[in-house]
Amino acid sequence: MNEHSYAVIMAGGGGTRLWPVSRKDRPKQLLPLLGEETLFQSTVARLTDLFPFERILVVTVEEQAREMQKQVAAIPADNYLIEPEPRGTAAVAGLAATVLKQRDPNAVMAVLPSDHFIRNRNLFHYLLRAAFEVAARNYLVTLGITPLYPSAAYGYIQQGEPLTGDLKYPVYRVLHFKEKPDEKTAQGFLRSGDHSWNSGMFIWRADAILNEIQRQMPKLDAALKKISSVWGSAKQTEVFASCWRDLETVTVDYGVMEHAENVAVLPAGGLGWNDVGSWDTLFEVLFPDMDGNVSASVQHLAFETHNTLVYGNNHERLIVTIGMDDTVIVDTGDVLLVCKADQAQKVRDVVEHLKKHQKENYL
Amino acid sequence: MNEHSYAVIMAGGGGTRLWPVSRKDRPKQLLPLLGEETLFQSTVARLTDLFPFERILVVTVEEQAREMQKQVAAIPADNYLIEPEPRGTAAVAGLAATVLKQRDPNAVMAVLPSDHFIRNRNLFHYLLRAAFEVAARNYLVTLGITPLYPSAAYGYIQQGEPLTGDLKYPVYRVLHFKEKPDEKTAQGFLRSGDHSWNSGMFIWRADAILNEIQRQMPKLDAALKKISSVWGSAKQTEVFASCWRDLETVTVDYGVMEHAENVAVLPAGGLGWNDVGSWDTLFEVLFPDMDGNVSASVQHLAFETHNTLVYGNNHERLIVTIGMDDTVIVDTGDVLLVCKADQAQKVRDVVEHLKKHQKENYL
Repeated sequence: MNEHSYAVIMAGGGGTRLWPVSRKDRPKQLLPLLGEETLFQSTVARLTDLFPFERILVVTVEEQAREMQKQVAAIPADNYLIEPEPRGTAAVAGLAATVLKQRDPNAVMAVLPSDHFIRNRNLFHYLLRAAFEVAARNYLVTLGITPLYPSAAYGYIQQGEPLTGDLKYPVYRVLHFKEKPDEKTAQGFLRSGDHSWNSGMFIWRADAILNEIQRQMPKLDAALKKISSVWGSAKQTEVFASCWRDLETVTVDYGVMEHAENVAVLPAGGLGWNDVGSWDTLFEVLFPDMDGNVSASVQHLAFETHNTLVYGNNHERLIVTIGMDDTVIVDTGDVLLVCKADQAQKVRDVVEHLKKHQKENYL
Repeated sequence: MNEHSYAVIMAGGGGTRLWPVSRKDRPKQLLPLLGEETLFQSTVARLTDLFPFERILVVTVEEQAREMQKQVAAIPADNYLIEPEPRGTAAVAGLAATVLKQRDPNAVMAVLPSDHFIRNRNLFHYLLRAAFEVAARNYLVTLGITPLYPSAAYGYIQQGEPLTGDLKYPVYRVLHFKEKPDEKTAQGFLRSGDHSWNSGMFIWRADAILNEIQRQMPKLDAALKKISSVWGSAKQTEVFASCWRDLETVTVDYGVMEHAENVAVLPAGGLGWNDVGSWDTLFEVLFPDMDGNVSASVQHLAFETHNTLVYGNNHERLIVTIGMDDTVIVDTGDVLLVCKADQAQKVRDVVEHLKKHQKENYL
């Protein structure tokens, strides 16, 4: 890494699949879901060996920024870019690139989610260094994750020809970004050997992503140029808010990457990556006992129970399970969730249902 | 019923299979498990059409007597017989018969559990009247329950020849009392057509049961005679306690009934009887929705959930189930139980485990 390397943490999202622990006003990245540190704190800690705090930026929303500054005081306040309202990762990437390009015309940046788990930190550092080198050659680079099973919960990236040249790690041109597949299609992807999970981690030159936005997303490009022209002036807040209001919500994957030129993927195996996307993923991240049970922040008395997650927030409370298999039990003060593990994705539907019926206190 | 007819409610037990709602100091008969009334209150209410309060007795232990008197103020204090410590239903039956015989040498008494559910109260009254008539002829009578399925959770009574004479209801000599069978044996009992569930409800003359105790249980007989001789005197408390301490704990079924002469059974179908013996029995007693789910005292949001009981004590708490089948969820302030319905009997083992490890606060 050199002085032109930056990390941008995307932390605006809400995420509903870890409800009832993750809530409207305390989203999962701000919670110590996997231990002492919050996911946001871990994300920052993974980066500090590579980037000084001055070169770590955070894009988030007002409600979350204060809590983040509390959790990681060392990131300068100026490095928090506050979205007036969330507009998807294309807008986030464009905003961060715009701000960084003003600061440093040669900026190369990694755009990283704030709420993922990565077990193998050394490999992550190695891959990020390799990706920055490829990005310096004007590629839009993405970290792919070598699939471990035919997941229908992730998007996929299909790789093509390998890049040539002096590379620290195998890198490939990207053929396609693919939406979450059905299970049968996912099995085909797994067997193909040329598909990676889309981790949502991107590395590129600031001017390279802005050029692609200019080419493919003219409305976003216009907004970013307007914002750039007033950035740091008295008009910043007003112009930023009015430009942002009119944007569509689009992901960078589909808004930019799918049809960009010079897109490359580093397919990473052994990273121990997990998007902590739903309750069943915690089986992969936390350490289970020999019956496959995982208990966190709770007294769990298991009796003929297997592959069951018991997640609480009160060590005084005793949770007894008898004859349960493949079950997720999440116990907060006001809500109890009992869910078949393979249906943990449906927690999102429950949250939608509660929203629709205005059960605000449970959201 | 005439002025020699009495009802004796047995209410000393603890019962652990409805833990964590039923606890050491608030056993199930004192709880409003099935609605507004406690099981004890319902038991009394079932009897008041047949017996004035003066002829309803309660055998219980000190800790429970006060709460019972609060719940049913109309039963005279003298009608509470307080066991120094529980010694099983043979001792209870003997004690009640001893006290009643002193009051009324012609006493005929029904001995009834305090914690059962009976849907068809009119039929219960009819059967009890019929049983009292048979008991007046010096039979030891038991109410049998026509089995609805091959339960391994109940004891069984095998009937023999029908009694003859002017009877209001078919009554049979008892061939055998049988312990809880295994499931295969239970299937044989069900097919046989001559086996009833042992409901634990008995009707007999006080002197008839005392004669059988004298013949079969000489130690209990001696104790009862000693107690009888001081009953109502200053020595009562001391003698009662010292006699009781030395008794073995025996049920009346096996201590007396199995080898008694002149034992009769009224096999009752359609009574809607349930011993509320474990959590899965609540499916039979409470009204399920069309998916077979039963919710009590809780907000339950069911999603692809079937045949699942959700039992709580806090209407503010939201319990969400996704993809669950045949599950029992019981939520109290300090304990959460999640249990496969067909393993609800194992709650008893959990309570034993907690006892062994002195987790007093959860007992």
